[in-house]
Amino acid sequence: DNKLKVFTLGSNPDLAHEITREIGIEMGKSSIDRFSDGEVRINIEESIRGCDTFVIQSTSSPANEHIMELLIMIDALKRASAKTINVLIPYYGYARQDRKARPREPITSKLVANLLETAGATRIITLDLHASQIQGFFDIPVDQLDGVPILSDHFAKKGIDNPVIVSPDHGGVVRARKMADRLNAPIAIIDKRRPEPNVAEVMNIVGDIEGKTAIIVDDIIDTAGTITLAANALVDQGAKDVYACCTHAVLSGPAIERIDNSKIRELAVANTIPLADEKRIDKVTELSVGPLLSKAIIHVHEQLSVSQLFN
Amino acid sequence: DNKLKVFTLGSNPDLAHEITREIGIEMGKSSIDRFSDGEVRINIEESIRGCDTFVIQSTSSPANEHIMELLIMIDALKRASAKTINVLIPYYGYARQDRKARPREPITSKLVANLLETAGATRIITLDLHASQIQGFFDIPVDQLDGVPILSDHFAKKGIDNPVIVSPDHGGVVRARKMADRLNAPIAIIDKRRPEPNVAEVMNIVGDIEGKTAIIVDDIIDTAGTITLAANALVDQGAKDVYACCTHAVLSGPAIERIDNSKIRELAVANTIPLADEKRIDKVTELSVGPLLSKAIIHVHEQLSVSQLFN
Ligand SMILES: Nc1ncnc2c1ncn2[C@@H]1O[C@H](COP(=O)(O)O)[C@@H](O)[C@H]1O
Ligand SMILES: Nc1ncnc2c1ncn2[C@@H]1O[C@H](COP(=O)(O)O)[C@@H](O)[C@H]1O
Repeated sequence: DNKLKVFTLGSNPDLAHEITREIGIEMGKSSIDRFSDGEVRINIEESIRGCDTFVIQSTSSPANEHIMELLIMIDALKRASAKTINVLIPYYGYARQDRKARPREPITSKLVANLLETAGATRIITLDLHASQIQGFFDIPVDQLDGVPILSDHFAKKGIDNPVIVSPDHGGVVRARKMADRLNAPIAIIDKRRPEPNVAEVMNIVGDIEGKTAIIVDDIIDTAGTITLAANALVDQGAKDVYACCTHAVLSGPAIERIDNSKIRELAVANTIPLADEKRIDKVTELSVGPLLSKAIIHVHEQLSVSQLFN
Repeated sequence: DNKLKVFTLGSNPDLAHEITREIGIEMGKSSIDRFSDGEVRINIEESIRGCDTFVIQSTSSPANEHIMELLIMIDALKRASAKTINVLIPYYGYARQDRKARPREPITSKLVANLLETAGATRIITLDLHASQIQGFFDIPVDQLDGVPILSDHFAKKGIDNPVIVSPDHGGVVRARKMADRLNAPIAIIDKRRPEPNVAEVMNIVGDIEGKTAIIVDDIIDTAGTITLAANALVDQGAKDVYACCTHAVLSGPAIERIDNSKIRELAVANTIPLADEKRIDKVTELSVGPLLSKAIIHVHEQLSVSQLFN
């Protein structure tokens, strides 16, 4: 079907090529480079008039560069008379700026949603939004895919003995429950508390972990402070072993060093943000969301419901 | 008048401070930094409810960073209930992507205009847009200030003997004419032509330059290829001496080396884009647009017409 065109930008070229191979189409022809002064220069190199177009770009670091590249690409697709402009954002950056935590703060998640619509996006496809409410920031359809099955399948295949799924905070319990269902395991919660002001936080563990293999699951791992402290607390408080996993491996600053020095045996991450070379340490396993996103593209193109992909 | 608040972002802090000193107010309190993963973190640190706010930010290199910082700041000002959000963009980046020069190209100037409005800008104040039509890309008021008087005054004060004002291309003749009027001088035009296909361009000069001091004027100098070739052609073809000037000193890639090695005696530039240290060579003189922008801010705040500033 030549009415389906997939384009890649700078954030996830390997994933994008995996997707076009999986679907069995050529990568859409475009040139993305920079003028001498660093301004983005984009040209679409084939006709897309009347096509369902898909652009793949995580708004991962450098977020601002990736966002602007994406907006300019959407503008070019719109002006080239694409029928639909479907934006696949495996990792939706700025997702943690989703409310005013303090007065006079921006809500950058909402701003970026508005920018994408203004540029001309007609649909968003993404994975594990930090807060599902971000879907409501858009007035266009948003398909939110679920990374937990990919993470769960990895540990199911591995065959973890006597697992317990651990949420590193109260906000992640629903996710832990979902994973636990798939692995037929109990859950536990890290209940971080400061017993008195100006006293160090205590890693209190709610749930039975004694002699079990803990699998900590989170949506985003950024500086890895919480997750490595949690892992060490789990082992210190009786877990036999500890694994960790997340959909979005931001891994900024000291993250890799912390993980390497922690009691985490393995960290499994999806490739919504590709691992930079220096992050490819032995402990880290990368799992592809390519098959899932390929199915999502075909479903959207054939006007089938994407929510079927959750089963 | 405490209803007027001026904020600076990352592109032009010195200019912004010059402006608040000139107006006689404190710089608006805000913190602009980055999260560990590089995402922009902005907080406005004082109440601006009901205020006329002004944000100063050129969308110069790194353009994408500067644009996103600006959009996020506008979002924060809007959510903090500013009465008006006046965006001072001394240099409006992406101005050369103002039309489809080839099929399936974006029109990024227009996109950025839409993004600024979507974020919540209520007025734009800028200098010497590469194409005045860009004003029409906005549905909010745009004040376009004129850098030519600042450049002209510099050469008037210097006292150039027997000057001729030179446009480096056909598109710049109106600007050259304006400068010539202020300096009471004739004009000349560089009429670049390729005599035959695959033959080098010839720098044909239209107008009398014999024994005169040429002052080349342009809006943007980027890689400085055109302007340095023009300068050398002017001297080779009889000009006694050659100066150059522009409002927006992009000066990317080989620009500084080319200027240093050219026959240009002095390049005068406005500070709409601040000169990086490595660009502060002896030949380059920086002129401030601070007094002009200060007046513009006061005019807008007092609801006077900014077009008076052109006289
Ligand atoms: N890129 C970022 N890196 C670290 N923290 C962030 C980032 N963006 C927003 N935040 C902060 O994260 C908090 C929200 O995270 P959460 O409570 O997990 O939803 C807020 O206090 C935000 O200020
Ligand atoms: N940042 C940039 N650097 C160099 N050339 C550009 C840039 N942006 C756009 N252009 C090109 O400049 C041309 C327009 O310049 P002009 O004819 O002077 O208006 C078009 O061919 C654009 O593709």
